[in-house]
Amino acid sequence: MLRTHTCGQLTAHEAGTEVTLCGWVNSRRDHGKLIFIDLRDRWGLTQVTMIPRDLGDDYQKAKGLRSEFVLAVTGTVNKRPEGTVNPKMPTGEIEVIASQLEVLNPSLTPPFETNDDTEVTEEMRLKYRYLDLRRPKVFRNFLSRSRLYQVIRSFLNSRDFIECETPILTKSTPEGARDYLVPSRLNPGEFYALPQSPQLFKQIFMVSGVERYYQIAKCFRDEDLRADRQPEFTQLDLEMSFIDEEDIYGLFEALMAAIFKELKGIDLKTPFPRMSHAQAMERYQSDKPDLRKETNTEFAFLWVTEFPLFKYNDEEKRWESEHHPFTNVVPGDVSRLDGTDLNNIRSRAYDLVLNGTEIGSGSIRIHDQKLQEKIFSIIGIEKEEAQKRFGFLLEAFQYGAPPHGGFAFGIDRLLAIVAGQDSIREMIAFPKTQKAFCPLSSAPSPVDKKQLEELGIVVKKAK
Amino acid sequence: MLRTHTCGQLTAHEAGTEVTLCGWVNSRRDHGKLIFIDLRDRWGLTQVTMIPRDLGDDYQKAKGLRSEFVLAVTGTVNKRPEGTVNPKMPTGEIEVIASQLEVLNPSLTPPFETNDDTEVTEEMRLKYRYLDLRRPKVFRNFLSRSRLYQVIRSFLNSRDFIECETPILTKSTPEGARDYLVPSRLNPGEFYALPQSPQLFKQIFMVSGVERYYQIAKCFRDEDLRADRQPEFTQLDLEMSFIDEEDIYGLFEALMAAIFKELKGIDLKTPFPRMSHAQAMERYQSDKPDLRKETNTEFAFLWVTEFPLFKYNDEEKRWESEHHPFTNVVPGDVSRLDGTDLNNIRSRAYDLVLNGTEIGSGSIRIHDQKLQEKIFSIIGIEKEEAQKRFGFLLEAFQYGAPPHGGFAFGIDRLLAIVAGQDSIREMIAFPKTQKAFCPLSSAPSPVDKKQLEELGIVVKKAK
Repeated sequence: MLRTHTCGQLTAHEAGTEVTLCGWVNSRRDHGKLIFIDLRDRWGLTQVTMIPRDLGDDYQKAKGLRSEFVLAVTGTVNKRPEGTVNPKMPTGEIEVIASQLEVLNPSLTPPFETNDDTEVTEEMRLKYRYLDLRRPKVFRNFLSRSRLYQVIRSFLNSRDFIECETPILTKSTPEGARDYLVPSRLNPGEFYALPQSPQLFKQIFMVSGVERYYQIAKCFRDEDLRADRQPEFTQLDLEMSFIDEEDIYGLFEALMAAIFKELKGIDLKTPFPRMSHAQAMERYQSDKPDLRKETNTEFAFLWVTEFPLFKYNDEEKRWESEHHPFTNVVPGDVSRLDGTDLNNIRSRAYDLVLNGTEIGSGSIRIHDQKLQEKIFSIIGIEKEEAQKRFGFLLEAFQYGAPPHGGFAFGIDRLLAIVAGQDSIREMIAFPKTQKAFCPLSSAPSPVDKKQLEELGIVVKKAK
Repeated sequence: MLRTHTCGQLTAHEAGTEVTLCGWVNSRRDHGKLIFIDLRDRWGLTQVTMIPRDLGDDYQKAKGLRSEFVLAVTGTVNKRPEGTVNPKMPTGEIEVIASQLEVLNPSLTPPFETNDDTEVTEEMRLKYRYLDLRRPKVFRNFLSRSRLYQVIRSFLNSRDFIECETPILTKSTPEGARDYLVPSRLNPGEFYALPQSPQLFKQIFMVSGVERYYQIAKCFRDEDLRADRQPEFTQLDLEMSFIDEEDIYGLFEALMAAIFKELKGIDLKTPFPRMSHAQAMERYQSDKPDLRKETNTEFAFLWVTEFPLFKYNDEEKRWESEHHPFTNVVPGDVSRLDGTDLNNIRSRAYDLVLNGTEIGSGSIRIHDQKLQEKIFSIIGIEKEEAQKRFGFLLEAFQYGAPPHGGFAFGIDRLLAIVAGQDSIREMIAFPKTQKAFCPLSSAPSPVDKKQLEELGIVVKKAK
């Protein structure tokens, strides 16, 4: 290490010790015969005092320091004189009297200050994301993200879940949004799809006998980014065998309690209230009511259960799945599948709602071949099409599929709510704009003709 | 839960208890008046004894059971009579005398047995991966994978590393292999590239002040899959600021020790031996010598250091980077960059070799703008091209880039060596063939005309 301590570490306990710190110039005050630097690293700020007598020839370098220069400073920890102690800073008891100074790298004047008080447009923030990330309030969100991952994994690992990976270069999944496609060079004219979710593969894992699967998975949807959406997002994806709804509710209530305890120090009240979709619509005219007012809590969770199995597509004059076609039916409503009134047939799908936002959803899946075929026929998926789209899953179901169900929640959205942020872009290190453009890397961009030739594709229209 | 216990849990301690187990028929023996089933779940096998007297009407169902049927069985735990105890099975002290039997799902006769002794072609294994994964030896690899992830994360989290995510829809990275491209619908004629590694973004994180970054990252290379390669693979990607080589060596020696202790119960001897690239080539005519013979160990680790900075491309008659153009130079060799003999200029790049296979590599990076420009000019990357390819990183380097370096290792390869497998395909749940084809999902596949129209591309040649 080029340093002996971090900038958040030194107290009066180390007084008299020789130390080396590395970091960025957060601020400087030049008093002529004395220069004060607040040196910043990930762990904090330390005041470095530069005096010609102690610093010798290096004092000349000290005079040229500017904001965001990168330094290595060696010096002696000094207990600050009475009256100059800063009780607000963890290192406020001490200063480092510099004896050596090395400028590891200079810095141009940043286009905006890296403290929290500066107002900066989102365009500038994303273009200079590396400077934006130096701002404590921005960076804090990514510390939370990393801690959230730890909480989730330690919680699920301790409950015997296995973390499994599913392919990114794969086939269309049943969500029904638009896929991102990847042309295959080795199979000209054919394409992979980036997964909208690991739905098919997680069900394959259940047929495989994994029984308890999870993954923090990247998902992709090529949508028009009207609302606060991103082309790629991250979800906690989970599936279990030999369970019913109660197992999912209990598991995710305990997981949310662990998350809020760790990230916010808040004890959530469990179990969460539940409401059927029909009740929610009747009482709140919403399938994601915000219960904060009536529960008087900062974070109001709610399970909305028994979503309708089908919805009618007025444009195409046909029934389609409200969730996806593998969603199971409430046993009491199975007989209604043979009737003509398909409205309000209840499914075994559930959403978790937090403060009026759907943060996750899931269902108990169909494991019965005949029921599955009936659903396909109702929503007008012919055998051939079902084969083409989900054939491998349907075939798998013939070889001993266990009853199973699962859940997935959006990491970005949950984090934004926990962090009190309006936009999921605050929780994604390198988000894209509404035009699905990355202001930092300038992706997407034109490519060489040769690359397209190898892929056997031609661009028909360009900007 | 549909069960009260797992199939790996019951001992004489539970004798007399009524239990419900769920799982698959692993084997059955029909003695006419008595049927024995070995019921299997993820946690083990339990013998279920079905007797007409106890099972009543359900005995008829028992007669129809076949391999891989999915059952829920309720019954009473019975201590096995003296002489029938099976000490090789954790549940060998007991049997469950069934009183209720529910067939949750039947199964077709599988195309191959799900025990370990059956020889099956790889084609069949991948097409029916969900049956293949039921085989204990195959499944064990994925348990190891999940445990490896736990070890890595708990090790790095305890050392203050932050897990950060980088985009999958991004720009070409500097590895120089062929990119997978993703056409952008919102930016017609433009493409995202799937990352060959998070190299540029992890260096951006260092400029951002993250200081200790890691990610278990998906990487993509569109190569001809001659050797044991996969279009997508997983790597542990890591970067640190204010460090030198010793910090990387020490960190990864401790990490490997933790991994081998947890997964294999082996105490690795650290530090690992080191050898410069020049020494390795001279003594072994290899930059990844296998030291197992001379060290007499099952797992022989070796650091190979100071790789040449450049290699000469005979075909194109020009020098290129041996690793990537951000690799730093051994200080003693910097002055030679101005000379004409560019052979054997030493870089600060290092590989970790295990049993003659390179399992990871990394380097201390250049953080000095002038040195970076000199390297680009030597390998013939003009300013304009450098701007186009890495412009955002070069710009970032002007705003206070700390000295930094990192490492990445291939998770699949390391796991294969640990598990004693020849192929990384054994460690990937849904691998692709040499034609980059997935035998389970049949990806890639043709897509609708409408999809291509939306993307503004045309397929020129098809199979």
